[in-house]
Amino acid sequence: MSRRGVFVVFEGGDGVGKSTQVERLCTTLETAGRAVVRTFEPGDSVLGARIRQLVLDPETGDLAPRAEALLYAADKAQHLHAVVRPALRRGAVVVCDRYVDSMLAYQGAGRVLAEAEVEQVARWATEDLRPDLTVLLDVDPRHAVHTKVAKDRLEAAGETFHERARASFLALAAREPATYLVLDARRTIDDLAAAIAARVSTLLTDDGTAPGLSEVSGRLTP
Amino acid sequence: MSRRGVFVVFEGGDGVGKSTQVERLCTTLETAGRAVVRTFEPGDSVLGARIRQLVLDPETGDLAPRAEALLYAADKAQHLHAVVRPALRRGAVVVCDRYVDSMLAYQGAGRVLAEAEVEQVARWATEDLRPDLTVLLDVDPRHAVHTKVAKDRLEAAGETFHERARASFLALAAREPATYLVLDARRTIDDLAAAIAARVSTLLTDDGTAPGLSEVSGRLTP
Repeated sequence: MSRRGVFVVFEGGDGVGKSTQVERLCTTLETAGRAVVRTFEPGDSVLGARIRQLVLDPETGDLAPRAEALLYAADKAQHLHAVVRPALRRGAVVVCDRYVDSMLAYQGAGRVLAEAEVEQVARWATEDLRPDLTVLLDVDPRHAVHTKVAKDRLEAAGETFHERARASFLALAAREPATYLVLDARRTIDDLAAAIAARVSTLLTDDGTAPGLSEVSGRLTP
Repeated sequence: MSRRGVFVVFEGGDGVGKSTQVERLCTTLETAGRAVVRTFEPGDSVLGARIRQLVLDPETGDLAPRAEALLYAADKAQHLHAVVRPALRRGAVVVCDRYVDSMLAYQGAGRVLAEAEVEQVARWATEDLRPDLTVLLDVDPRHAVHTKVAKDRLEAAGETFHERARASFLALAAREPATYLVLDARRTIDDLAAAIAARVSTLLTDDGTAPGLSEVSGRLTP
């Protein structure tokens, strides 16, 4: 337990530039010699990829909203178990594209389920592991650049759905402002990358562990 | 809402004779002219069959206990949505081989998860739909007849696992005795079938609906 990594999550709607900023941050950290694990939800585990196929496959048919939420929760539980926690134990910086907030925004606010109930399921799935920092790239859905054709169920939903999701992302950020960095996604790529790198650097000590835990460790072993 | 079916569940360990008794009950009900839907958990929906493949496939690898529980919960949510509720709305007798109790007994008592937490997930998945009757075929696991080679993960667990599962089944029955019929599974097939048919008959009115709801309906439309 003497080393622990840092968990950084990117959230926001489709087409706001999350992938680009994830890439930039990972490159910056790797250049600085940090161990970095780049990952995403849903689907970045052997099980998760197959769950995602099930959810998106039209042949699965009419999916019960609770079944869909529980499948995404199962994906999260496995992703934490197989990818995120092992990397954090090794002391890596884990950079994850989408996490619990996306599930809450899209399953809870956007669909027929109560967001508080979905949150309870998602927190149980993840053993309530919270990111050290969540970067929310925010933009009005009407201004978001959609560069790909809407192919799956999520994207088949209408504009009102995306507006509700945005409101949900912002409300989650407002609930715990200390661990969120909310940025206007219309800023330039370089500008956003610099702001994100500056904030992440405050979470890193020279040996790559989270400052809070290092301090505790220092006190225990003077 | 003027017609509602009856939901009968069979629970108990592997090899206690559930399939035989499900078959016998369904035949008895069909012979009496009842609409019967015979089903099972996990896996009796298009989605459920694929979830079950995922869970049992050794290639899925080291499965997080919470991921496994959430997959079974997703199966339940979809099964209720696609199979059980539509049949109950049509007024059928739904006879289901395993339901929430099996999940609690095997996931909760048998594994590393807190049973109360697993129950919360399972109840949410099923919108807390309870059976009108649960038939628990009980036997000491050391006396259970195992007629097939243990092939999957559940059956790869040891005897202590099955003893814990049995204790969990019995505890669930003791919690709501009015809706359980606990039978010694070592009784003869005919003897068990007669006891089950007699109890189920008390749940049926002449038109095949549940007596309680028919009475309410009768009061509303004198």
